[in-house]
Amino acid sequence: MPYLPLEEHLPGITGLLEYRRDTAEPIRALTQILLRGENTLTPGERELIATVVSNGNQCRFCTNAHTAVADLLLGNCEATAAVKSDIDTAPVSEKMKALLHIAAAVQRSGKEVTPSMVERAKMAGATDMELHDTVLIAALFSLYNRYVDGLSTVTPGDAKFYDGLAARISKGYERLPNGYDHLKRTH
Amino acid sequence: MPYLPLEEHLPGITGLLEYRRDTAEPIRALTQILLRGENTLTPGERELIATVVSNGNQCRFCTNAHTAVADLLLGNCEATAAVKSDIDTAPVSEKMKALLHIAAAVQRSGKEVTPSMVERAKMAGATDMELHDTVLIAALFSLYNRYVDGLSTVTPGDAKFYDGLAARISKGYERLPNGYDHLKRTH
Repeated sequence: MPYLPLEEHLPGITGLLEYRRDTAEPIRALTQILLRGENTLTPGERELIATVVSNGNQCRFCTNAHTAVADLLLGNCEATAAVKSDIDTAPVSEKMKALLHIAAAVQRSGKEVTPSMVERAKMAGATDMELHDTVLIAALFSLYNRYVDGLSTVTPGDAKFYDGLAARISKGYERLPNGYDHLKRTH
Repeated sequence: MPYLPLEEHLPGITGLLEYRRDTAEPIRALTQILLRGENTLTPGERELIATVVSNGNQCRFCTNAHTAVADLLLGNCEATAAVKSDIDTAPVSEKMKALLHIAAAVQRSGKEVTPSMVERAKMAGATDMELHDTVLIAALFSLYNRYVDGLSTVTPGDAKFYDGLAARISKGYERLPNGYDHLKRTH
């Protein structure tokens, strides 16, 4: 039961982004630039960072949503399953493993990122900008997870809901001009 | 020693916001709306939320910066000193005490916000929007603290630096058209 009067057909983050639209706009813009903008990390790799952080925070809505979209963008379910249990077993590059360890550290606290974690990422070919973006994406999902759970929003139990959401956000995080018709149909 | 090649005269968050300006823009916009936009919570009260969260995350740069700006906006140093040790002893309203407890819970995890915390805030007169904004401000500083510490930015030791920063951000979080001349002078 949410702590705010949110629209019932808009669970998780979706109702919050409609509740206060003026704050939603820069949140959406930041997410769009970081997760879908031009980048040497693929959108699927960046969704793995979102998945690792959401899973670390035990935010079920965000974990389900970003698992679904990462699976869709990567074309497999093995990577998300692995990064939620043991990052080093995931079918991703050595560079991504190192960056995902940094993301997992940021989820706990910024202070947990050590020089040796950064060294490992750089040795595996991570650029300064990839390091920056990994930390900022992990910090952004630290915001999202707290926003979603701190206001006790609803987490749908139906996997179809997340498939519908994933199909939409795989294309981007900007607001649909006609609202959430697609979500209304699948939820 | 920062993990990125940041400009030396721009410590803490200030160098990060210059490092990647396209992501900085929505971060600044969100902060401006939440901390300085029209609101039934005063800017000083909202800076107390930022202070509580930054202190909980032991982010020295952000704690020093938001303590200084809260002190300036509130006209006293007692409130920030109290909220960093025992919220209930702070010279603030019962409503603010309840909202600051919610912010402190969000800092730890969104899941730590309980119905009884929300009930206490509502009984003390908090509106739904004040509850929303408290959670989102706390979530935003969970982002900032991780961004600042996750990239190991520099924390100035000189109190004068934070007084200069506070004088500037007391007026707003938007980027100065001519850069950080004021910071250059005081640092």
